[in-house]
Amino acid sequence: MKTIPHALHPGATIGIIGGGQLGRMLAMAAARLGFETVILTPEAENCAGPVAGTVLIADYTDPEALARLASLAQVVTFEFENVPAKTLEILGGLGCQVAPGAKALAVAQDRVDEKTFLNTHGVPTVDFAPVSSLADLVEALARIGAPALLKTRRDGYDGKGQVWIENHDRATAEAAFIGLGAKPCILEAPAAFVREVSVIAARGHDGEVAAYPLGENHHESGILRRTSAPARVSPATLDQAQTLATRIVTALDYVGVMGVEMFELANGQLLVNEIAPRVHNTGHWTLDGCEVDQFEQHIRAIVGWPLGPTHALAQVEMTNLLGGEILDWGNLAAEAEARLWIYGKGEPRPGRKMGHVNRLFPLKP
Amino acid sequence: MKTIPHALHPGATIGIIGGGQLGRMLAMAAARLGFETVILTPEAENCAGPVAGTVLIADYTDPEALARLASLAQVVTFEFENVPAKTLEILGGLGCQVAPGAKALAVAQDRVDEKTFLNTHGVPTVDFAPVSSLADLVEALARIGAPALLKTRRDGYDGKGQVWIENHDRATAEAAFIGLGAKPCILEAPAAFVREVSVIAARGHDGEVAAYPLGENHHESGILRRTSAPARVSPATLDQAQTLATRIVTALDYVGVMGVEMFELANGQLLVNEIAPRVHNTGHWTLDGCEVDQFEQHIRAIVGWPLGPTHALAQVEMTNLLGGEILDWGNLAAEAEARLWIYGKGEPRPGRKMGHVNRLFPLKP
Repeated sequence: MKTIPHALHPGATIGIIGGGQLGRMLAMAAARLGFETVILTPEAENCAGPVAGTVLIADYTDPEALARLASLAQVVTFEFENVPAKTLEILGGLGCQVAPGAKALAVAQDRVDEKTFLNTHGVPTVDFAPVSSLADLVEALARIGAPALLKTRRDGYDGKGQVWIENHDRATAEAAFIGLGAKPCILEAPAAFVREVSVIAARGHDGEVAAYPLGENHHESGILRRTSAPARVSPATLDQAQTLATRIVTALDYVGVMGVEMFELANGQLLVNEIAPRVHNTGHWTLDGCEVDQFEQHIRAIVGWPLGPTHALAQVEMTNLLGGEILDWGNLAAEAEARLWIYGKGEPRPGRKMGHVNRLFPLKP
Repeated sequence: MKTIPHALHPGATIGIIGGGQLGRMLAMAAARLGFETVILTPEAENCAGPVAGTVLIADYTDPEALARLASLAQVVTFEFENVPAKTLEILGGLGCQVAPGAKALAVAQDRVDEKTFLNTHGVPTVDFAPVSSLADLVEALARIGAPALLKTRRDGYDGKGQVWIENHDRATAEAAFIGLGAKPCILEAPAAFVREVSVIAARGHDGEVAAYPLGENHHESGILRRTSAPARVSPATLDQAQTLATRIVTALDYVGVMGVEMFELANGQLLVNEIAPRVHNTGHWTLDGCEVDQFEQHIRAIVGWPLGPTHALAQVEMTNLLGGEILDWGNLAAEAEARLWIYGKGEPRPGRKMGHVNRLFPLKP
């Protein structure tokens, strides 16, 4: 038996920080394996609670709620990377096991720290510079050139908190910096990529790493529109991607599933764009394309179970259902090859991720 | 769009009567499609509640709980066939939609009514006779012969409430009848079957019928041990099974998934042994062997959505994990081809269904 000595038994309780669709699908995967779940979220209206045994509605740093979470759960995980450091401190002080750990969160929460960490471990990224002031930005633009992408160091997602700077003009730079709130930023060189790909990798307590085939991703307005997987890449590119992902999760002594977004350049080289220390939208294709999906894989990793197989059983095209697109559920339900996932959210606001559909096709040889 | 005009939208609430593993997996399937769920069960410790939004702990005939259920749910279904008639009366009186309907339940709850119904609709069964008294039993034995199987007309499951009568001896007959509590019974001729097979069929609101490939079932001590699917049967047998199942669900104006257990005789003829107006243990292989499993199919049917595809994607061997077998979860989790479902029940009492494992193999041509 390959499970670690301290693997959690079915019936144990898993804490999940965050009440969105990723928390919901994590709770469903935990239930499949016989685990209980408890969700912590500040939102009374949330979509993970209805599929979890217990829901704690409280701020992420509420000491009482965290004490309750720690007393109920044998391990705590999260569905988003911007978990406050204070939350982890409090849980740590209570002796609560958190997976993935604080190091991965810290690295993923700050774009400068993230790229610095990656480069330090031999993982290539675009050229970048930290920006704390307008003077920094002007200097960075002079070195990196324009156009370049200015992003806040922290808290951006789905294309928010970033702006392209098209020229070296000081006024343009100033407008961009002010526009982002004059917060600490990062200036990134553009990547002349031919494709955006991602790899979903998992690492167990015992250091075992398992990576899924690559997904090819298409974004619109900064939001993931669709993923095609397995991506048709050369064996060398696949190997390169899996090597980089393995290097990252190993360097972080990581436990759980991680999404690693990459740019594929014309010469086949891969640059890592971003890491997400959690289950990832570009891994939703695994829900219907693999024997063990990313959510079950994450649960397996954090409870100390052996990782499951990661090969693809089908060619999958995953399409996010954004905002009002969810209203087309009737036609989607009638489509034979379409596998529907609907998140049980309320209002279909524009751009809001309401569900996704996995369309299955025979694997290409 | 093929959905019926009154199909329920994602976000609607589905009521489920019963808090066991079938209710649990129904609730998980409902969640996948964005539905809310409410469970009604008399047991405070139940395994469906933790994955449902609302749990009502009350007797199945509690008027207050049923009023609450009817006010929350747009449609009510059940995980077991022995729902009291009073429950359906109360829900009906409240204008609550119940699927499958009262007719299917009534027929499935009484073994004599069931076989009479089947024969009336051209569905063959073993020879049988109703038994209300010892005199009836003696007469039935004289006609049907011994050995024969005496069962209570109502409430038997997993081999309970039945006994073989090995000879025509009046004392033997009396002991058997008294042993079953001298309740209304049925005497059944034995079937000289070569295999036990079952078909899981679904019928939608619009009368569309979809049947999965056959499962071949192996029982031990009256409890399902394993199902292999798709069963290797001739095209004629498959056709015969699907025709019989279609005849049954159509005659009942049925809505939902039904399990139809059959005996395959040496000459290829099929006799229907039992119908279960609900998702069925012999259909658990579909959870990992089909795009749309029996639980999602049931939800689709009762909410008025189009039925999903039913072809097999893999050869599956489903094995129930009974009692202490669940303690082997560590080895099962480490088995690459094993897909685990653990029900989150407490005590692994002998014979208790604690989970199941689907082992996947490439489809045989």
